[in-house]
Amino acid sequence: MPEYVTDANDPRLADFAGLRDVELRKSLESERGLFVAEGEKVIRRAIGAGYPVRSVLTTERWLASLADVLGDATVYVVPEEVMRGVAGFQVHRGALASMERLPVPPVSKVLEDVSRIVVLEDLVDHGNVGAIFRCAAALGVDGIVLSPRCADPLYRRSVKVSMGAVFAIPYARMDNWYDGLEEIRAAGFQTLALTPDQGATPMDRVEMRDRVALLLGSEGDGLSSRWLREADEQVCIPMSPTAMEAGVDSLNVVAAAAIACHGLMRGASSP
Amino acid sequence: MPEYVTDANDPRLADFAGLRDVELRKSLESERGLFVAEGEKVIRRAIGAGYPVRSVLTTERWLASLADVLGDATVYVVPEEVMRGVAGFQVHRGALASMERLPVPPVSKVLEDVSRIVVLEDLVDHGNVGAIFRCAAALGVDGIVLSPRCADPLYRRSVKVSMGAVFAIPYARMDNWYDGLEEIRAAGFQTLALTPDQGATPMDRVEMRDRVALLLGSEGDGLSSRWLREADEQVCIPMSPTAMEAGVDSLNVVAAAAIACHGLMRGASSP
Repeated sequence: MPEYVTDANDPRLADFAGLRDVELRKSLESERGLFVAEGEKVIRRAIGAGYPVRSVLTTERWLASLADVLGDATVYVVPEEVMRGVAGFQVHRGALASMERLPVPPVSKVLEDVSRIVVLEDLVDHGNVGAIFRCAAALGVDGIVLSPRCADPLYRRSVKVSMGAVFAIPYARMDNWYDGLEEIRAAGFQTLALTPDQGATPMDRVEMRDRVALLLGSEGDGLSSRWLREADEQVCIPMSPTAMEAGVDSLNVVAAAAIACHGLMRGASSP
Repeated sequence: MPEYVTDANDPRLADFAGLRDVELRKSLESERGLFVAEGEKVIRRAIGAGYPVRSVLTTERWLASLADVLGDATVYVVPEEVMRGVAGFQVHRGALASMERLPVPPVSKVLEDVSRIVVLEDLVDHGNVGAIFRCAAALGVDGIVLSPRCADPLYRRSVKVSMGAVFAIPYARMDNWYDGLEEIRAAGFQTLALTPDQGATPMDRVEMRDRVALLLGSEGDGLSSRWLREADEQVCIPMSPTAMEAGVDSLNVVAAAAIACHGLMRGASSP
């Protein structure tokens, strides 16, 4: 049964507080063990992936659109202006769901039985993390490993930009950065460090082994010198010499990730 | 000589009015024939590409950073809070420049002496247009042709996301959409329509001719049926079958453009 709420400050809506306040959300979501999915399609994918619904916040207009998948979940129905007041923005397709987080598996689990993974080192932009999950999932990457400081794939914006791909691809987070690559190499993965350095091996020409891990660095600084040094091979995406002369000297991390993930598929064994 | 201004509503700052109001900016910029570049690096690239400076808006703190390239341009120096008041956001590296637009060349001019172009049909998101210019420039695309309804590459956000690549790659706008492709085909370009349809030819397997035009469609709907039908060949980026089963059934337009532009370079004749 839907519960009608008319006050944006009603304590029943506490899961949805301060959605535009990144710091507040980080602590609130980790304390309560929840994340927020926005929009009908993404909420359906979260439910389909097995995340339990804590509650849904919607308006009369969108109430029916999710009825078939919500079961006996608590649904709070609010007027449009309360929705905007709670969210602080125009909610995509009029529905937000507070979902329970599930335990993130250990890295060893994500490395089992897979041949192509992506490892993200300290990407702090939630939109970029979401976009890379979307690319990786679409292009057949089997799993993602995050450095300890990498942004949360279940943060609302990551989830939204990924179009729900964060639910479709297994991921794990390293316990520590310093020795993080060692476990991946020990599991037999060839580690490829993506760098803008045009002296590195072009991605198209790498001789790939059965198990390959593509390492992607942060938006500004790229991979740490430690990871660059530890990797089996440094790889690059060849750029136009004339563009580099004109000062267009790099791709953004999502474009680079897309091209590199596409390249990973070359020679990947079919399942 | 810098002119010190203390009132956000001072008429001398009119070029910078309403920077967050897309509709206002569209009419203001077309009437006055200007665009706005944000941040030192992008302003330098605009000046380097030959766009005349109308005026620069900055704060005392950032004044010196551009001194070497501004010549005798008018520079308005305002307190930090006036800067925020005028812009309505935190200005990247403390400087905005109002630049004069230059005449956009006809399509025929952009098609001269080039072998790889991208054609954008009705992309309305300024960030996506800027990101595609950045990819295209970095990956050696020689020119870009825009459909009549495509977003403005010189809109502030396009310029910013492109990191100034909009100044590095020649572009033109079609007079009309209906016959727009005909001129490109008549100039001897093989037209490749990018589609998510997995029945199309994988981008990696296209036999490319000397002159190739890659057609990219809008964020939501992709290419129009007319352009899909008129193109010489429909091409796709192969996706993972398991991802498609999980509902991750497409790449975003920038990721797709990056992979496709990378693919265009295969077999391109070296300059």
